Amino acid sequence: MRTAAPNLLWLTNGHAEGETRLNAFDNALIAAGIGHWNLVKVTSVAPQAATLVRGPLDIEAGSVVPAVLASCQSDRAGELSTSCIGIGLGANSHGMIMEHSGTGSPEHHEAVVRQMVHESFVRRGLELEEVIIRSVSHTVEQIGASVAAVVLWWR
Amino acid sequence: MRTAAPNLLWLTNGHAEGETRLNAFDNALIAAGIGHWNLVKVTSVAPQAATLVRGPLDIEAGSVVPAVLASCQSDRAGELSTSCIGIGLGANSHGMIMEHSGTGSPEHHEAVVRQMVHESFVRRGLELEEVIIRSVSHTVEQIGASVAAVVLWWR
Amino acid sequence: MRTAAPNLLWLTNGHAEGETRLNAFDNALIAAGIGHWNLVKVTSVAPQAATLVRGPLDIEAGSVVPAVLASCQSDRAGELSTSCIGIGLGANSHGMIMEHSGTGSPEHHEAVVRQMVHESFVRRGLELEEVIIRSVSHTVEQIGASVAAVVLWWR
Repeated sequence: MRTAAPNLLWLTNGHAEGETRLNAFDNALIAAGIGHWNLVKVTSVAPQAATLVRGPLDIEAGSVVPAVLASCQSDRAGELSTSCIGIGLGANSHGMIMEHSGTGSPEHHEAVVRQMVHESFVRRGLELEEVIIRSVSHTVEQIGASVAAVVLWWR
Repeated sequence: MRTAAPNLLWLTNGHAEGETRLNAFDNALIAAGIGHWNLVKVTSVAPQAATLVRGPLDIEAGSVVPAVLASCQSDRAGELSTSCIGIGLGANSHGMIMEHSGTGSPEHHEAVVRQMVHESFVRRGLELEEVIIRSVSHTVEQIGASVAAVVLWWR
Repeated sequence: MRTAAPNLLWLTNGHAEGETRLNAFDNALIAAGIGHWNLVKVTSVAPQAATLVRGPLDIEAGSVVPAVLASCQSDRAGELSTSCIGIGLGANSHGMIMEHSGTGSPEHHEAVVRQMVHESFVRRGLELEEVIIRSVSHTVEQIGASVAAVVLWWR
């Protein structure tokens, strides 16, 4: 990673079953197109100069890649595993990335994330220009996982 | 981030209420002056050549910034949320950073951290020159959080 | 850290007692030879060009070092704390690193990790050439920890 702020953002998600909780998580990463990197969990800022891009990103497998991650694993058949990410973009400032995951409907998690993005802007005295919210849900068969992520990188 | 060891350390803390646990945590990060970076949690070494500086650090918003983090979120009104960090500086070696957080008094957490710093030096056969301990407590109103951190960076 | 994928892998482990859970974990890191770096937890990819080396690695104390980490801390006397890591190397692709830890026998955790490595290759449609699995167990006296890790670095 570099000391300069990342200037690319990629919002993605995925879901899958697996034979263990870690494999279900790993399979959800694959489904999201981020299963071939060494992801590092970071807190939640969208750099001002960053461009939101359509993935997939062309980054060498095994690279150390910062990402905001939401995930939910469950081994209760029939349960809904939902992961949600929201990006708030600022009018003249950096933005904020919020996440929420767990069981329950996408609508529930999206409402929570929307509220969190709003509060994060109010608290910083920043003007919110746009909110982008995406969630993914997985109905657990045996062991399932959902993952939502914002990958941060440098063009 | 770079492959060289960081040469700046900034010890900070903050506390706040929030509408959710993540927002309370986020608001505590803002209060600590570290809410505009993508923090990466690291284990606990103070590089030998690092200088302890008074913040705030001038790092671009959204940068990926390594930090030792202690935090405690609580939604029990009246409960004391305390986060404590201690830096042990070595006489002729690298130092160690220890953290402890939870409910309870700052005195309790500071005593635990002091003991942890001592043990981390004894175990490494290093000579402890100085211990700096800081804690922050928050009395929860509805949903509150405290955060103590050491930010590691490069001058 | 750099944006290029790491090209060195070091598989190590350790175990120890400590006066607190964090110290037991820290002492296990020392025993594993990785207690003098700022470790950053990453998900689980072995870059294709990476060489598995015998440690210890010559990296400056306090450096920010990516690692896949498995650890288990326990304060129940007599309990077995086991941490296991497996590296699956691909025939013509990147590899995968899986981990499992908890109480219970090394045989149990090794079997789980072996299965996870296999599934991670099947799911990606990759050909598995070799699996290397190492575990460490610690019989808890008062407060104990085991740690297994793969350190990723650049030659």
